Amino acid sequence: MNFISIDESAIYYEIGYSCDNGLLLSLGDERLFFTDGRYELEAREAIRDGEIIVTNGIYLEANRFLKGSSIRELIYDPKEWNIYAFNTLTDGLDVEFIPEVDLSHRRRVIKSPEEIELLKEASRRGREAFSKLAEEIDRVGIGESEFRLKYLTTSILSNHGDYNISFEPIVAINENSAKPHATPSNLTLKRGHLLLVDAGLKYERYCSDRTRTSYVGDNISFGLEQRFKSREMQRVYDTVLKAHDVAISNLRAGMSGRDVDRLARDVIESAGYGKYFVHSTGHGVGLDIHEMPYISPRADRVLEDGMVFTIEPGIYLPDRFGVRIEDMVALINGRATIL
Amino acid sequence: MNFISIDESAIYYEIGYSCDNGLLLSLGDERLFFTDGRYELEAREAIRDGEIIVTNGIYLEANRFLKGSSIRELIYDPKEWNIYAFNTLTDGLDVEFIPEVDLSHRRRVIKSPEEIELLKEASRRGREAFSKLAEEIDRVGIGESEFRLKYLTTSILSNHGDYNISFEPIVAINENSAKPHATPSNLTLKRGHLLLVDAGLKYERYCSDRTRTSYVGDNISFGLEQRFKSREMQRVYDTVLKAHDVAISNLRAGMSGRDVDRLARDVIESAGYGKYFVHSTGHGVGLDIHEMPYISPRADRVLEDGMVFTIEPGIYLPDRFGVRIEDMVALINGRATIL
Repeated sequence: MNFISIDESAIYYEIGYSCDNGLLLSLGDERLFFTDGRYELEAREAIRDGEIIVTNGIYLEANRFLKGSSIRELIYDPKEWNIYAFNTLTDGLDVEFIPEVDLSHRRRVIKSPEEIELLKEASRRGREAFSKLAEEIDRVGIGESEFRLKYLTTSILSNHGDYNISFEPIVAINENSAKPHATPSNLTLKRGHLLLVDAGLKYERYCSDRTRTSYVGDNISFGLEQRFKSREMQRVYDTVLKAHDVAISNLRAGMSGRDVDRLARDVIESAGYGKYFVHSTGHGVGLDIHEMPYISPRADRVLEDGMVFTIEPGIYLPDRFGVRIEDMVALINGRATIL
Repeated sequence: MNFISIDESAIYYEIGYSCDNGLLLSLGDERLFFTDGRYELEAREAIRDGEIIVTNGIYLEANRFLKGSSIRELIYDPKEWNIYAFNTLTDGLDVEFIPEVDLSHRRRVIKSPEEIELLKEASRRGREAFSKLAEEIDRVGIGESEFRLKYLTTSILSNHGDYNISFEPIVAINENSAKPHATPSNLTLKRGHLLLVDAGLKYERYCSDRTRTSYVGDNISFGLEQRFKSREMQRVYDTVLKAHDVAISNLRAGMSGRDVDRLARDVIESAGYGKYFVHSTGHGVGLDIHEMPYISPRADRVLEDGMVFTIEPGIYLPDRFGVRIEDMVALINGRATIL
């Protein structure tokens, strides 16, 4: 299969290197990596198996290369390519470009044992970071704004620069947590508040992803056991936790993403909060923070051993509060193992 | 002029709000902003002048809206749109989509006085951060790796979470600085080393951008005056500084980007380092870190009052060291003012 890609994770997966101006031509066993002079030294150090072509214009140079080649068909992902770059690439070529949406995500959907180990290690380090974060919030976070708490979260997740983070963390207090993708506000944390943290780090480029919702009492824990003063908060929390647990313990290889979404959604609907679970139950995780498989009401793909994804049900009561609990699982021997 | 956009900065410029899943239809004086439920509350708080349409599928919903409208022409930027999204948007429509590359960058190339004030303030805060950074590196940075120094740079540029950063900072020691876009390595900083830092912050969403190359002696300064022990380093540094100064003091409104690039390049070529100045002299800065105008050998656009851009000549001696000096300037009354 001959394909072309410009996505960083896609290219890294194939040749063990990528940068923000690179193009990969994968032609049978041959790999050509186009980049500019800024990355030449790094690329030569990192890429063992592939030819490196240094150029000021990666699209134009790939176009020139294809013009001089006998290639007549190339698969590409139409989500990767902006129209301008694609026009430059394809200009005047006698090559059929065959669209395949999520080409690289499809290639990566089943993780190798090595990849699962890397994801497990990413998740382990992410979990440790959450423990440290609880201590630090207890120590210096009370009275601080969401802006500062987000910064603290980034600092601790990255271990002060050792890791990249998987995504901008979400740190939300009380009513701001009712926004599933809240951006930080000036709300300040006080004891007695609800605190939602959604954060991850990258270990060897593989992402971790985890959400905990916590009652900030005399001390702070991101463990799954939480005791809220408000009876309704507790009821919502227990419902979300049950949805999380039920989905993880009952999901099996051979189910579709929709089936697993249903496991979680049924629990929340039965408790009367169905309309407040406004997103899907989960998503694949790997080199990207959002990969295949999808765990949603529209996901008919069958789940298989080697897939890694999140289970993250939530309930969001507008202007009041939200609860989400998220873990990463790997499908091994037909069942979910929490990473 | 009717246009459509999905770029965050482009949308923010038009309606004062944006998020990572938004689409703007600008139809005469009317503005429609499409987003999903996660952002509805924020969008309603922030957008005064425009209609908000909440949907699970922004492209499909815009397609539906256009089908029911009398619009027959829409301008779009082919760099903004991936092929997949554009196909969803345009499916079955009787609308002519007119490509205009860099549509929003063109709209934004002349900054208003208010924007120049914001960029000046961003730059001022960026400069202060560089001073603080020098102190902190002096205090705790000697013996630390580029990874840690990059983290320290991010921490101080963001003022521990108050600001977003404009881009991932470049922090490079000695031979790693020979890569114009170096990524951090395990090289550790010692007194006597050359240190290059390229970093910026965002103030009210406007970017700062600055590079300094410093001799790390008994103390550290990111001022323009530097004294290296190595005679060659000093010669390279002085050449780059002269190119920077000559370009800034001699550039005028009415020149092209190419003319200004030539001012800097001439100095470096005369000193015999022409082949080691491997990038262009500058780029516009605004809501994005790279905007119009370009200051490069291929840039024929004429520079006008109200434009804001960087002047950043550099010399890179492979495997040995690199020097770059960068400031932001605004073109005011026909001349460059350093921001």
